[in-house]
Amino acid sequence: MASFQLGVLFAGLFLLILWGPSGACMYVAFSAGLSDNVKLQANDKLRYDRVTTNVGSALNATTGMFTCPQSGLYQFHVHAFPIRGLRLWMSLYLKDIPIISVYAESQSSGGHSVVVFVNKGDTVYVAAKVPSKMYGGSNDIYTTFTGYLISPYLN
Amino acid sequence: MASFQLGVLFAGLFLLILWGPSGACMYVAFSAGLSDNVKLQANDKLRYDRVTTNVGSALNATTGMFTCPQSGLYQFHVHAFPIRGLRLWMSLYLKDIPIISVYAESQSSGGHSVVVFVNKGDTVYVAAKVPSKMYGGSNDIYTTFTGYLISPYLN
Amino acid sequence: MASFQLGVLFAGLFLLILWGPSGACMYVAFSAGLSDNVKLQANDKLRYDRVTTNVGSALNATTGMFTCPQSGLYQFHVHAFPIRGLRLWMSLYLKDIPIISVYAESQSSGGHSVVVFVNKGDTVYVAAKVPSKMYGGSNDIYTTFTGYLISPYLN
Repeated sequence: MASFQLGVLFAGLFLLILWGPSGACMYVAFSAGLSDNVKLQANDKLRYDRVTTNVGSALNATTGMFTCPQSGLYQFHVHAFPIRGLRLWMSLYLKDIPIISVYAESQSSGGHSVVVFVNKGDTVYVAAKVPSKMYGGSNDIYTTFTGYLISPYLN
Repeated sequence: MASFQLGVLFAGLFLLILWGPSGACMYVAFSAGLSDNVKLQANDKLRYDRVTTNVGSALNATTGMFTCPQSGLYQFHVHAFPIRGLRLWMSLYLKDIPIISVYAESQSSGGHSVVVFVNKGDTVYVAAKVPSKMYGGSNDIYTTFTGYLISPYLN
Repeated sequence: MASFQLGVLFAGLFLLILWGPSGACMYVAFSAGLSDNVKLQANDKLRYDRVTTNVGSALNATTGMFTCPQSGLYQFHVHAFPIRGLRLWMSLYLKDIPIISVYAESQSSGGHSVVVFVNKGDTVYVAAKVPSKMYGGSNDIYTTFTGYLISPYLN
């Protein structure tokens, strides 16, 4: 019985230390897209005019930059659809290093997903590798950037 | 070590008591697809004959409708592949509003993902925007609708 | 109230992580891809030379096989891009049964996602259904296999 109570105490302490009073752990999730056509030059970051979700406000839709507020494992999705007759070629960058790519030509969709550890303060964004033309409509969103924390503190 | 593990067990029990039996929070996850060709008219909802996962039974495969049993952030994926020579154009609808779209022509795949807050009772489904022809085979599933709760109560 | 429930959620996540050493429950997440072109014969498993994430070491990149170390609901993503002028046709196999497929022809992307219950010891892998040619570059990763545990012990 004593060990039981000690165990409960210990578990409680762990939870407190790991999460509670310090406010050290926060939830992060975002999803944003294009509701209009966008043309990018090579190296331009994709920016978003339609923000569906931004828990934690870590995505800056105006710059296209996600700045990680909580170290952990993140799931990211990039989807894109080109303007008819044109093409797009983009990568998802973590600390300015391309980790996954998306390519699509006229009337075909591009998409890619990855799970990766991101440290607090690291930046993640989508940028064009060549001049790229993305299609978007007000009720017809094809080009999006989505990310969320799936597990904090794992490395 | 034993008392530590017991403590973890107790903490788990506490979580169960706080969360489970009260009906305050339930887990939700589904994944369903087409094991045969399907032709939709504009505005038809996509329905599913192959249910891989339906924890919480919130997806009605017969109607194609997901009715949210637990408010929270959800991840949704829509994937589709057209019958050869034909095309498909669909959107994912949350409360009858299209939030992301999928387009694909012959021999190319369409797919899209989003993270969005869904309130208890809200409906989410995939429907055609124009007449759409999806390919499916018994051991060759291309057109699917997947969703799951990633975090309850966040808004 | 929301932050309290969020705390409970994260406490659950930490329990998951803490459970690890005892072997009772462990966290699992992987993401791996191709940084070079790969040609597969029918039935060949896709193998990975670029491992981005492998928490739990359950993906054997050399064989392409994920061997489930923890029963639960898993999210899987398969993405692929063919070498120009060629095609690919692959499936994700759970216990040697194809559960979702990916097809792509020259200059179009293929991708698919699923959520499925996997038992401890079950194997999951991606294999070609016909001879398939995947494109990859050192800073241009298109073909990937990603998976992670979204909830343990649910069936």
